Amino acid sequence: MQRDTQKHDLLKKLSKTTPSKIILFVMDGLGGLPIEGKTELEHATIPNLDSLAKNSVCGVVDPVSPGITPGSGPAHLGLFGCDPLQYEIGRGVLEASGINFPLEKDDLAVRINFATIDKEGKITDRRAGRISTEINAKLCEELNKINIESVKIFVKPVKEHRAVVVFRGKNLSEKISETDPQEIGALPLEPKPLSKEAEATAKIISKFASEAKKVLAPHHPANMLLLRGFSNPPHLPSFQETYHLNPAAIATYPMYRGLARLVGMKILDLKGSDIEDEIKALEENYKNHDFFFIHIKGTDSSGEDGDWKRKVQVIEKVDKFIPRILNLNPDVLIVTGDHSTPAILKSHSWHPVPILLYSPVCRVDDVTEFSENACGKGGLGRIPAIDIMPLALAHAQKLEKYGA
Amino acid sequence: MQRDTQKHDLLKKLSKTTPSKIILFVMDGLGGLPIEGKTELEHATIPNLDSLAKNSVCGVVDPVSPGITPGSGPAHLGLFGCDPLQYEIGRGVLEASGINFPLEKDDLAVRINFATIDKEGKITDRRAGRISTEINAKLCEELNKINIESVKIFVKPVKEHRAVVVFRGKNLSEKISETDPQEIGALPLEPKPLSKEAEATAKIISKFASEAKKVLAPHHPANMLLLRGFSNPPHLPSFQETYHLNPAAIATYPMYRGLARLVGMKILDLKGSDIEDEIKALEENYKNHDFFFIHIKGTDSSGEDGDWKRKVQVIEKVDKFIPRILNLNPDVLIVTGDHSTPAILKSHSWHPVPILLYSPVCRVDDVTEFSENACGKGGLGRIPAIDIMPLALAHAQKLEKYGA
Repeated sequence: MQRDTQKHDLLKKLSKTTPSKIILFVMDGLGGLPIEGKTELEHATIPNLDSLAKNSVCGVVDPVSPGITPGSGPAHLGLFGCDPLQYEIGRGVLEASGINFPLEKDDLAVRINFATIDKEGKITDRRAGRISTEINAKLCEELNKINIESVKIFVKPVKEHRAVVVFRGKNLSEKISETDPQEIGALPLEPKPLSKEAEATAKIISKFASEAKKVLAPHHPANMLLLRGFSNPPHLPSFQETYHLNPAAIATYPMYRGLARLVGMKILDLKGSDIEDEIKALEENYKNHDFFFIHIKGTDSSGEDGDWKRKVQVIEKVDKFIPRILNLNPDVLIVTGDHSTPAILKSHSWHPVPILLYSPVCRVDDVTEFSENACGKGGLGRIPAIDIMPLALAHAQKLEKYGA
Repeated sequence: MQRDTQKHDLLKKLSKTTPSKIILFVMDGLGGLPIEGKTELEHATIPNLDSLAKNSVCGVVDPVSPGITPGSGPAHLGLFGCDPLQYEIGRGVLEASGINFPLEKDDLAVRINFATIDKEGKITDRRAGRISTEINAKLCEELNKINIESVKIFVKPVKEHRAVVVFRGKNLSEKISETDPQEIGALPLEPKPLSKEAEATAKIISKFASEAKKVLAPHHPANMLLLRGFSNPPHLPSFQETYHLNPAAIATYPMYRGLARLVGMKILDLKGSDIEDEIKALEENYKNHDFFFIHIKGTDSSGEDGDWKRKVQVIEKVDKFIPRILNLNPDVLIVTGDHSTPAILKSHSWHPVPILLYSPVCRVDDVTEFSENACGKGGLGRIPAIDIMPLALAHAQKLEKYGA
């Protein structure tokens, strides 16, 4: 048996339900690289996070393994204590979970991008001019009427040009090639089986794509769709069975809500999509759960845009809410990211992510500021993300002793 | 499947060929222990390496695992990203590869040490007075004539008293005990099968040893040979298939050339055996490859000799060539060792080895000198050697993102 599977099984044996509360506060893409001599986090004025770091044990986290740049799926699996090398989550499943679609065990979920094609069928815009979510919803209604023998089809809007289609039937395989050629001026690709057992599924997908083309023809700029991220749901262990927790997730973006749902978290309703709305949801639901995953998207999107000043602003804004979180008096508060998104790279990266773990029973180190380099010298050292949950549970005193 | 195997498979999936270039500069046995209050590296005046460290991310490396002292084989496997606990390379295979012998899959390679025996057959010198390589070559020619049914025999000189014999045939097993008793005054040992399936092979080896004794009898001081390191070639994944690299190796010693060849590196010709010759080979071949392994032997041999001042000199000499390496403008330059060889121990040791990774996209830490203790506080933390290649590839931006 794998060592990480062993560790996971051990946690399942040792975890116990207690009244103590854990908050896992995740700033997406938090880690950065120096611009004008300082990382985004170092540029930010964050008195509350610095003071928290001073009273915490700090470290840096490898989301998957040194050198590996994770997508959001593997990065969050790691944070949730599931080995990202063992479990894979496809884009289709992520999107479906994110819109609260009740996926069944054998479903095949696929991400749709509405696109624009010209008279020759060549792609002129892979995002259909980012149509509104309202138009998207109407198109999905029409696509929902497509009828293919032996499968049920559910087409659901996500946001702007993004939608999801779920096929329900027997032996639907995810081993299908994407139809998005990833370039302008090319024709959409035929969905092809990537293994023998996917041949029947590929025919269904192909049929769906050609029917969809007919349905969408009159709806320029969304006169075509591209299919990506064919995926069956992974069988992830839930927070309930593994950690005996009653977990809740607070996230504004569908994908992260989806990821949280896959491990059994209840997704809390938000009044809006501001950080303040997320903190309010935490406050209002604080008594109902013993674990909270809070996800902040702005640090990642600003990093992806290469806008380091905006990333600094998002971090500074988060800092202002730290006192409200501390007012709740959590037994464990962890602040970290799921991966780095340095603005100078405009993409996710492999660089480790700072982490602080605040708890009355943590061994406070002498880190005095919350930054990549300062945390690198902290008492946690350099740890893989899958070690975060055991550390959280331990500091919340939710783990029994192992062995006599 | 083992986690390290999974990581290796993952790299194979994520690696892509790009124009960026990686230099892995290895000072053999680099790590040391304090003498007169400072390690060899701390005694050395190395302005260029210190300045490089200042602009790099630093750390320390466990070649295999904390506490494990590696031989050259496992130590280099780790550097090359192959789990040294999974793959073993025998001494015979190392020697054969080092002299460019085209080993076949089922060959059995064995290291020969020419030795001196007295009239009673007892060993008086395990190195035959370190005979010249020329005499060695002549002896090998004679030994080559030995004829044993069912196997082909290739005897090749290596250097001084060291040679190699390769047996080619069916079902040749490496499970044979060595004939070197490792002490003066003892008789050479009989080669014994260490497992059932090695019985036939043991007979062949025994025959070879007794024939060789007859052939060598008139050639005092090399009037006997000792056989060690029975080994079949390991099936190592190559740099080409795993990392999609076009790698080259620059090393003066046969064993390291052999190790590099085993993972698919092209061995570059050298005009001489000085560090300067190695740097020239790098410069002259720089445009032809995207990965360079450079091996410096002097740090290890001086450490093994217990000559700490010579080790300091070698390090200082290396330092002078750093600007020439930097002139090539590599995308990633890593400077490290394969293991420690503290002069006060006169042997390899288990102590972690300092590493610096220099790249425009590394997260520079606040280490300001290249030494064991300074690097220990660096941003890389303490990593196993098999994490070096993923980090090199990541910083050269040769890895795709993992997962959606």
